[in-house]
Formats: sequence, C-alpha cells, structure tokens
Amino acid sequence: MGKIVDVKFTLKEYRYDKPFHIVGNISSGTTNIEIELILDSGARGYGEASPSFRVNGEKVEVLFEMQNFVRETIMGMDVRNYRRIFDLTDKMFATPSLKAAIQCAVLDAFSEEIGVPVYQILGGAKNTIETDKTVSIDTLENRIKEATDIFKDGFRVIKVKVGENLSEDIEAMEEIYKVTKGAKYIVDANMGYTPKQAVEFAKRIYRKGIDISVFEQPVLATDISGLKFVRFNSPFPVAADESAHTKYDVLRLIREEAVDYVNIKLMKSGISDALAIVEMVKAANLQLMLGCMAESSIGVNQSVHFALGTGAFDFHDLDSHLMLNEETFRGKFKQKGPKMFVEE
Amino acid sequence: MGKIVDVKFTLKEYRYDKPFHIVGNISSGTTNIEIELILDSGARGYGEASPSFRVNGEKVEVLFEMQNFVRETIMGMDVRNYRRIFDLTDKMFATPSLKAAIQCAVLDAFSEEIGVPVYQILGGAKNTIETDKTVSIDTLENRIKEATDIFKDGFRVIKVKVGENLSEDIEAMEEIYKVTKGAKYIVDANMGYTPKQAVEFAKRIYRKGIDISVFEQPVLATDISGLKFVRFNSPFPVAADESAHTKYDVLRLIREEAVDYVNIKLMKSGISDALAIVEMVKAANLQLMLGCMAESSIGVNQSVHFALGTGAFDFHDLDSHLMLNEETFRGKFKQKGPKMFVEE
Repeated sequence: MGKIVDVKFTLKEYRYDKPFHIVGNISSGTTNIEIELILDSGARGYGEASPSFRVNGEKVEVLFEMQNFVRETIMGMDVRNYRRIFDLTDKMFATPSLKAAIQCAVLDAFSEEIGVPVYQILGGAKNTIETDKTVSIDTLENRIKEATDIFKDGFRVIKVKVGENLSEDIEAMEEIYKVTKGAKYIVDANMGYTPKQAVEFAKRIYRKGIDISVFEQPVLATDISGLKFVRFNSPFPVAADESAHTKYDVLRLIREEAVDYVNIKLMKSGISDALAIVEMVKAANLQLMLGCMAESSIGVNQSVHFALGTGAFDFHDLDSHLMLNEETFRGKFKQKGPKMFVEE
Repeated sequence: MGKIVDVKFTLKEYRYDKPFHIVGNISSGTTNIEIELILDSGARGYGEASPSFRVNGEKVEVLFEMQNFVRETIMGMDVRNYRRIFDLTDKMFATPSLKAAIQCAVLDAFSEEIGVPVYQILGGAKNTIETDKTVSIDTLENRIKEATDIFKDGFRVIKVKVGENLSEDIEAMEEIYKVTKGAKYIVDANMGYTPKQAVEFAKRIYRKGIDISVFEQPVLATDISGLKFVRFNSPFPVAADESAHTKYDVLRLIREEAVDYVNIKLMKSGISDALAIVEMVKAANLQLMLGCMAESSIGVNQSVHFALGTGAFDFHDLDSHLMLNEETFRGKFKQKGPKMFVEE
C-alpha cells in the first residue's frame, strides 16, 4: 500500500489582491499547477507548482505539457520509497517548480498513508514559525501605507522590495522605519542594483541607524563575485535568492564565500535540493531563510511543514497565500496573523 | 504518545572470532553500550554505542558515566520531534558513538511508534545492499587464507587492512588478488603510511594490473594536505575515514579537494551529521561508503537502515557483527552472505 495509481494536473488561477510590483515586473496574478496523487490505498497527496519565468525560466503552459511524462515516470511507484521518486524527479531540472510540486505531493501522500504529518517525517523541530509580509515597489505614499497596515496587522518582520531607484528606495526605507519601529527588515533588491549601488544603499541605510536583518539578492543572479563584493563591503547580512537554485549553486556560493544567507524556495529546489541546502548551509555556519513564489495555501503548506520539520530557518517569507484571492484555505496548518503553526 | 519515559544503558561485551589486527592495534573484543528508550506508549527503541579510543578518543567507562546526563537531557522529549533530540545530542561531540546510539534509538522508537521502518522514514531508496568483509593484518599465509574464505563465502568486495609494512602489504595484495579474481578491493591503511609511501603503494599495485576501488585513509587523520597529495598522485579513489567525523570536517575536505570518497560511520557522526555529510558529498559530486566500528547486529542494523533509506553509498563495509560472537541476531534486516535486505 503506497503505490501511485493516478496523477492529476489541474491549472489554477489566482489574482493578487493588488498588483505585485518588484524590479522590472508587475504581476496581477498567477497560474499554478496543482498536482494530485492517488494511492492504491485511496490516500491522496497534493502539491503545487507556481512557475516563474523570471527566476526559473518556466512557462506554465510548458509545464502542463509534462503531464504524460510525469505520469509515465512515477505511476506505480511507492511513496514509502520517496527518495526513489526524488531521484527521478531531480532530473526535471528545467522545470523546478514542477519537480517541487511532485516531491511535495509524494511526501503529502506518504504522510496521509502513514498518518504522520509531514513536519514530523522531516524531524518535527518546531511547531510554530512567524512569517514576514511584503511591501512591494510603489509610490512613497503607498509604500508607507502598506508598511503601516502590515505592522498594524501584527507582522514584526517586514520585507521591503527595492532595486528600481536607489534614492527612492533609501527614502522609502527611512519613512517605513519611522512608522514601524520595532520591526525587523528584509530588504530584497531582486537583482536590481549594481554591486556598488548595493554597497551605497547599505551604507546609507546603516548611517541612518536603520538595521537590515537580511539584504537579499542585491545584484544579478550570475554575478557571484558581485554578491561577494557586497557581502564584504556591507554592514548587513547578504542573501542569495535568484543565485541559489540547486545544491550545486549553494556549494559554489559556500566555496566562494559569497553570502551570509541563502533564501531557499521549494519552487527553485524541490524538497530534495532544499534538504541538501539546509545541511550544507548549516555545516558552513551560514544562515537560512525560506521564501515562496506565488503559491496558494496548498503550496505554502509544504513550505510551512518543511520549516517546522527542519527548524532550520531564521526568517520565513511565506506570505504569497496572504496576497492571493483564494476561496478556501487548504493548508494543513493554522494561521493567526504572522504565526503559522500546527497543534501537537 | 511518543514521549520518552525511560532511558537504559547496558554494557555488552563481545569477543571477536579471531583477534582483529589493524595498524598499531590488535583487538580481541569490544565492550559496547546498548541504549534502550521506552516511550509512554510502551514502544521501545534500541541503539548501540561502540566506542573507539583510536578514532573518537572514547573510553567505554567514561561514556557509561554519561547516563544521568543523557536521562536528564532527553527524558520527557517526544521522539516524533526527533530533530529536537538530534540538536541536543549534537552537543555531545566528545562522545560521538554515544550521540549516535541515542539518535539511532530515537529513530528506532519513532519507527516503532508509527509502524514505519526506519529505512522508509529516511526515504526507502533501496531494499538491498551488499557488504564487504575484512582481511586483517596477519602473516601472508593467513591473509591469503582469510581472503580465500571470504571469497568462497560469496563476498565480492574484500576489504584489505594494510599500513604496517609497505612491501608485505604489496605482496599480500598481489597474492590475495590471485585467489579472489573478480572481487573488488577496498584497501584501508588506517593512517599507516606517509603520503609518499601511500603513493608508492598505489603506483606499484596499479603497475601489477590490480584495481583498487577505494584507498582508505592512507595518511594521518590530521594530514589533510597529505590526503590531497595522495588523491592527486594516485590512480585510485582516496577516501577519508579517520579524517572525517563531523559535517564540518567534511566541508573542509570538500573545500580543500582532499578526497574522492568519504567513509561515513554512524559511530563517528551520529545520524544527524551523517545525513548532512551524505548531502554535502553528493552536492560535491564525490562518493560515499558506509563503515562501522565494532557494533553487534543491533548497531549494524541502524547503518543498514541508513544505507537503504538514503541509498547514498557505493560501498558498504558493515561486517563487524559477522566477526563478533553474538548469541542472537537482533537486526531488523535479513542477511544472506554479503546481502543485507528488508522485505517490502
């Protein structure tokens, strides 16, 4: 009992509550693929792919066409031997969010099969985490209003999107700081700065007495020496996001001493590489945050369980489901303001 | 349900069928510590520490005195949150075999609690592995006889202990090769050679047309540049054993490009560091073997499940229980000649 007898792909459309603006990209919604696995026992497992062209080079219509291949690859396999399915899906490196969705669905089905929640299969390190919420790029007024609202809603880690305009970004940080005192900040430039602009940004923010907990992906994904330059010339911890997809990427970042933090996203790495990255980053005495693309609650669910199970993350940036207009909450966790938890 | 309500330490003595001779050490037996965990549900988990002074600096009587500390540390904890117990026991870095025994007992108890075998909790990558068997240092005659017997018993990977006498070792390899054609060889010098002796050994064996699958720990544990010298001047893959205890050791070996292989032993690393090492070594595109100290079947059991679950190992050197006079086989696996397996 545990054999996969059916695999279903379903397209799911979600709209953002308001357009989501980051460097070079304004998004009004997302089309995700939901994966349902059915086992011979009748147990079902769910996963979600939230494709990203910008980060993964993925197009949802292309991913959808992988349906037959995926069925042929995993039908008849037993989720109790989940690493065998992980090894097979690791070959789908050109469609990482689909790999992630399948691996998540496999773990979810295994969990249902044995009656043990995913976070306990992964080690049960924590039972509560706290997510940040994101202020996207906008007019100064709107950025301040969004930050104020987030802070009022109880979030104490605020992610601020920057990278399009250095002086506007600095002004925005200064004004956001004034209305959210006591919060921690993750600043994400999404590759928008040059290395020298990034250092300039960090130094000017530092001189204003504002602390940044994580300075995410200041420079281009492929500019590893640029990341290292910012790391060694900035007072704030520097994180790789777009530069860190696979475990091989992360080993290179470690070897080159390029970052203080890695932002793991299941949509970039799947469960398999995410587990490897957790172990490598900890062995290198660096730090971890966990992010998301545009997953609904069903996709965010797996990241919540991954975070609770491994207990490896200093920051959790799992707010996409809070920004999408989803009819029904489908996570196997509870959410109260920023808190995400399971009851033991 | 899953809370630890009792922790028992028991000393267990085993004798070798014949004295086991490696570089600088002849051993006639071992005194191990068996750990029994009892859960509030009544489920029990077992682990075994096989201490090594030579490799870990451990003395069994000292480890036994950790009993109260271990009880105070883990009593009342829930095995379903096994990573929390792993994190606490990671602090026991001066007694790694005891850390391993506790972590193994925790996974075993979790497995009993949920009715899922340990190898499936870890991913169920394989259901069969094959172990080598070891020819210890002895007279040439006895080495040949032992190799012949091992080969007749169906073992197709033979581990040969060398490192005390270069010319005798070369002669022994040559004679063993003649009577075991078709076998693969793991040659373990247990730190006995200088880097230049190790290269000399490898080159002379190579010139005789004998292939060595893994050349283990040719030089001193602390001589990482020596390992690297042998790696880059030998035709055979070089493995770290005594040089590789923790994940931090292995990250250094990877950074310094010192080895082709890492020999993981749970007694050196516990489950926690072993999992990390598996991920790091694979990310570095290096290879893995899994070894043992002097565990009985109960300790070897955990290594078998670790190997089956992760599926990460090219060679398995899990023969200690085959050399000890144990009254009852207590592994949760089956053994037929070199094959170790679980029935699905």
